[in-house]
Amino acid sequence: MSRILGIDPGSRVTGYGIVDGDWGSARCIAYGTIRLGDDRPMGARLADLYVALGRLVREHAVDEVAVERVFVARNADSALKLGHARGVVLLVVEQAGLPLHEYTPAQVKKSVTGSGRAIKGQMVSLVRAILGLDADPPEDAADALAIAMTHQMRAGSRAMFAEALGVKGGQW
Amino acid sequence: MSRILGIDPGSRVTGYGIVDGDWGSARCIAYGTIRLGDDRPMGARLADLYVALGRLVREHAVDEVAVERVFVARNADSALKLGHARGVVLLVVEQAGLPLHEYTPAQVKKSVTGSGRAIKGQMVSLVRAILGLDADPPEDAADALAIAMTHQMRAGSRAMFAEALGVKGGQW
Repeated sequence: MSRILGIDPGSRVTGYGIVDGDWGSARCIAYGTIRLGDDRPMGARLADLYVALGRLVREHAVDEVAVERVFVARNADSALKLGHARGVVLLVVEQAGLPLHEYTPAQVKKSVTGSGRAIKGQMVSLVRAILGLDADPPEDAADALAIAMTHQMRAGSRAMFAEALGVKGGQW
Repeated sequence: MSRILGIDPGSRVTGYGIVDGDWGSARCIAYGTIRLGDDRPMGARLADLYVALGRLVREHAVDEVAVERVFVARNADSALKLGHARGVVLLVVEQAGLPLHEYTPAQVKKSVTGSGRAIKGQMVSLVRAILGLDADPPEDAADALAIAMTHQMRAGSRAMFAEALGVKGGQW
């Protein structure tokens, strides 16, 4: 069992969610959004993101990190901005010496909703139901929790396969 | 007079160039490229970039930093990758407490070549000639030196205007 931090990076709002336990018995440790503002210089926002993420990783003794793999952004300008925030995320994870796992949006949707075609609102209520949360998490936090749970599920399947095949530490 | 670090960010190669003096009497202090490799995970590359840039800023006692403003990248995928590296650049500059100046590619070309339509090879030889370098700098380093000199020129013009107008610390 490991403690997983899921991150949904953004240069205005970055969502995060931390889960414990295995897929099927997932427990939510914390979730929220890091609001960076959109009227401040990008450098100041990124410095705040760096500090906030470093604090999260340390305070919650995170073991692994999962983040969305981005294939296509809406356009080059939004991709550049997203890249600024995502670069800081990857930097903090690397500096903390944590394993990083990347999943496509389709993988995340499929693992949480069973289909690759979830709409945003569905994700929030499904994440809330699976984790037994008292309230709807913000969308960015729900996405981050979904990414963390995707890793739980995938890691669980790998362990099951490995056990069935008599392999230790299987990695496919 | 201030010491200016120009940076041309890239997720494979980041060029840098440091100049002293005023526009017209610019002196090159250092230039080079930070090669991050393209077969390593992005996190590892960004962590190396973070360390290398931090070292540059401290070792050369840089006063100001200039970087290209990016409007349009070739496509969303390359914009995302460029964003990763550029995000780390902005973070290091912010954490070092240095002023950051951004110039468009057209401004950089115009300040160094006199026209907005320089081709790459021209930039290398012009930068070499202006700074009296012994050899052609690598393209990425030449771009970085050109960005630093663009700030020298712009800062020089602002100071001249301010003097002519009897204004102190003019900022337009």
